[in-house]
Parts: sequence; C-alpha cells; structure tokens
Amino acid sequence: MMRGVGAHEVIIESPRHVVSTAELSEEQLREVLWVYRDRLVDLKKDPRLVYGMIFKNVGSEAGATLEHSHSQLIVMPVVPINVWEEMTGSLEFYNFRGRCIYCDMIQQELASEKRIVLDTPGFVAFCPFASRFPFETWVLPKVHSSHYENIQKNGVDDLAGVLRQVIAKIEAALDQPAYNYIIHTAPFDTQEIAHYHWHIEITPSLTRAAGFEWGTGFYINPVPPEEAAAFMREVEVETLESQDIPARGAG
Amino acid sequence: MMRGVGAHEVIIESPRHVVSTAELSEEQLREVLWVYRDRLVDLKKDPRLVYGMIFKNVGSEAGATLEHSHSQLIVMPVVPINVWEEMTGSLEFYNFRGRCIYCDMIQQELASEKRIVLDTPGFVAFCPFASRFPFETWVLPKVHSSHYENIQKNGVDDLAGVLRQVIAKIEAALDQPAYNYIIHTAPFDTQEIAHYHWHIEITPSLTRAAGFEWGTGFYINPVPPEEAAAFMREVEVETLESQDIPARGAG
Repeated sequence: MMRGVGAHEVIIESPRHVVSTAELSEEQLREVLWVYRDRLVDLKKDPRLVYGMIFKNVGSEAGATLEHSHSQLIVMPVVPINVWEEMTGSLEFYNFRGRCIYCDMIQQELASEKRIVLDTPGFVAFCPFASRFPFETWVLPKVHSSHYENIQKNGVDDLAGVLRQVIAKIEAALDQPAYNYIIHTAPFDTQEIAHYHWHIEITPSLTRAAGFEWGTGFYINPVPPEEAAAFMREVEVETLESQDIPARGAG
Repeated sequence: MMRGVGAHEVIIESPRHVVSTAELSEEQLREVLWVYRDRLVDLKKDPRLVYGMIFKNVGSEAGATLEHSHSQLIVMPVVPINVWEEMTGSLEFYNFRGRCIYCDMIQQELASEKRIVLDTPGFVAFCPFASRFPFETWVLPKVHSSHYENIQKNGVDDLAGVLRQVIAKIEAALDQPAYNYIIHTAPFDTQEIAHYHWHIEITPSLTRAAGFEWGTGFYINPVPPEEAAAFMREVEVETLESQDIPARGAG
C-alpha cells in the first residue's frame, strides 16, 4: 500500500521578476542547479520517499500558473510510471547489449553530428532521433551517472552554461515559446546504476496533444530533429556571466 | 519493418456550421456513428492496416484546427502503444480473473451508482475511478463487444442519444469547454475477443499537461469523479430529434 506522504517545493530562481532560465545569469543558474541537488540529497534521507521529480514550466501554454521564473520539486512515495518505464527499458537494453543506452546515444549523436545543438567538454545537447515535439532538446552529461544529485562542482559549472545557452537558442529560434524542462534521474532507493543515465529533456510547447496523441501515444511532429538542430546551431546567443541583465517581464 | 501506409479521413458531421456533437440532432449523430462503422469495415479489408483510431477534437484547447464539427479516422499499419497497453493489461486481468475488466467496471459502477452519469438499456456513462481529468467520462456498451464496428442498429440508435446527452451535460456543466473524444476499440486483426471491451472516452480540456504530468505519467485532477458525476446527473439537457436546432457558431 502507498502512503500519502511527499513534498512539493517551489524554487524561486531570482529576486528579480524574470520569466525564463535564459534571463538568469550563469551564476544564478548555478545556484539553482545546486538547490536541485541539495534538496534531493536532503529529501532522500526520508525512507518513505522514493522519487524526486524536478521540473520547470514556463508560459501558460506549458502549464505555468506563475510568471516569475521558478522550478518545482515533487517528491513521492512511489516511482512514477514514466520513470519506471525508462528504468526497465534501459535495463532491458543493458541486459541485451551490456551498455547504457544513453551512453550509446551520446556516442552515435556525436559521430553523426546532424542532431547536435551544443557540445562541451562535460555535456552534449541534441534533438533526439524521432523527437515527439518540434525542437525537443535533451542535455546529457558525457560521463555516465544515473543520479542527478551525484553531480560534481565542475558539472554544475558546465551545465549552467549549457542549459542557459540551449534555452536561449530555443527562445531565439521560436520567439520566446512556452516550454517545460524535466530532470530525468534514477529513484532514490538505488545506488549508481550502470543502465540509467540522468538527463534533462526540454520541450517547447508549440504543438498540443489532441485526440490522436491521447488515443495512440504517438506524437505528430512536423519538424524533423535534424532541421531543428541545424537551426539552433546557427542561432547565436550571448553568454551572460553577470547578474546585470535586463528582465524581459515587468520590473 | 513497418511500412508507411495508412489513411487519414476527416468526417464532416453536418452541412450546417455547428461546432460540437451536442448541436447535432440524434438523427445526424446516428449517421456519424454509422460512418465510423462503415469506414472501419471498409478499411480493415486492407491487410496492411491493423488499427483504426477514431477521435474528435472540439475547440483549440483540445487541439482542433477546424471549427466546423468534424471527427477524424487515422488508420495505421501498427497497433498504437496506448492501445497495445490496454489490450495487454485487459488480457492480464482476464487471465487472472477470467472476466473482462470493463464488464467488471460496469457492474461495480452500476452497483455503487456514485460515479454514474447516465444509464440506458444499452449503454452506461460514468466518470471513471481515479479519472485523469476533471469531468472525464466514459461511455460503454453494456453487452460485451471488443470491436466498435460490430455495433448493431439498436446500438447505434441508443449510443447516439447517450453520446449527445453526455456531451450536452459536459457543455452545460462547464460552459462549452473544449473537449476530445476517442473510440477505444480492438485492432483489426483480431476476432471478437473476451478480454477487451470497446468504449468511448470523453475528456474536457480544463487542465493542461505540464512538467509534472509529462515527467511522471501521473495526472493531477482537482475534481473527484464522484463530484463531477453528481453534478452532471443534475444538469438537465434537452433531447433533440429534429435537425432544426439553432447553431452555436456562425451562420
């Protein structure tokens, strides 16, 4: 039986009224990434809690009900079904091939190059093969790790730059769309595991799930990932180190 | 390997510019229900096609891109993942209990009464236990049948009244919300099967899937199905037999 315990935390990302991750400086975003880690590390001490889902909704089309830039952490006494499917799917692949499917994807995407959005020493961002949504972009650490909360300091430093730049590219390419990002990470009650690889999935809200998608579980995506990635590679965005950036929203 | 064959048909439901099923007369809706059946019967003759998904999107929040009342039929060379999950889940239940899970649900819902929206000799409409969406309503034939296209004349006659009334109740209760309905039916390449039961799922678009729903596969529903059903039972709607109904939309 499942007990009705859990936690829901809202992470306010800036004292200024900004609405998107792209308006945070890298310094601020590093702080946000540390908060994600610290809260997971703290909450997983409670043995009743088995999964922490970190996500961000930006814009009403992406389900946001607050404008001020924020992320959410929902911690649950059960492994969510979508996480369970990723865990079992990747385990099946591992049992069959002896390799992490995400490590394989990183290797293949880096070799083919055509879906790559950004490539840094620590992270790679690409539009996944058979993306469900236009401009869907995944960010993965190159070194295998199953749990986001095991990230190290140089990982946070690198990820802040990558995540900010990818979102800025999406915003420049699509004129500030609503979007979600979700951290996909392993359940609390597992040690580092060989078959799962934490990552961030960023999905702009351009299309809307309708009867076909709800009925089938298939997604109609009018933009091939190769085209989305090529477009985003071309878009130039500035790197913001300082906090002195103008806010897009109200003062 | 899957071949890229299939069909996409748009079923225009009325020569008048109406926007919802509730604005069709029962006579018109019966014609629509016959078209669904006839097109499935015709398309399943093609051995390359294995599934026909019939759905309707009403309103832009439900993904409709046309206003004029229409349904869609998409026929595919593969069983969609969501259908496959329903088929295997209901088969597991059947192997365990020896009964159709949907027949069991009908019996339990009729006995408990609290989630029932409408009960006629041939069909029952209820808000399912642990509904994903507020006012989500399912319509099921009381007599077991796995394939929608095996519906008989008295079934069509009864279903037209039930479907129109349930949608009119949803529209009256929620002030003309956007909505989807989807016919859940068995794949073409099966004969009548004991473990699956065709039905229609109607989902008003009041809430929006956001980061939490995409990440977990869990749905936050602020309206208990018992409350939604009680509300809809109270709502009175007229029965329209004639085609002389005023259209809600333009001209």
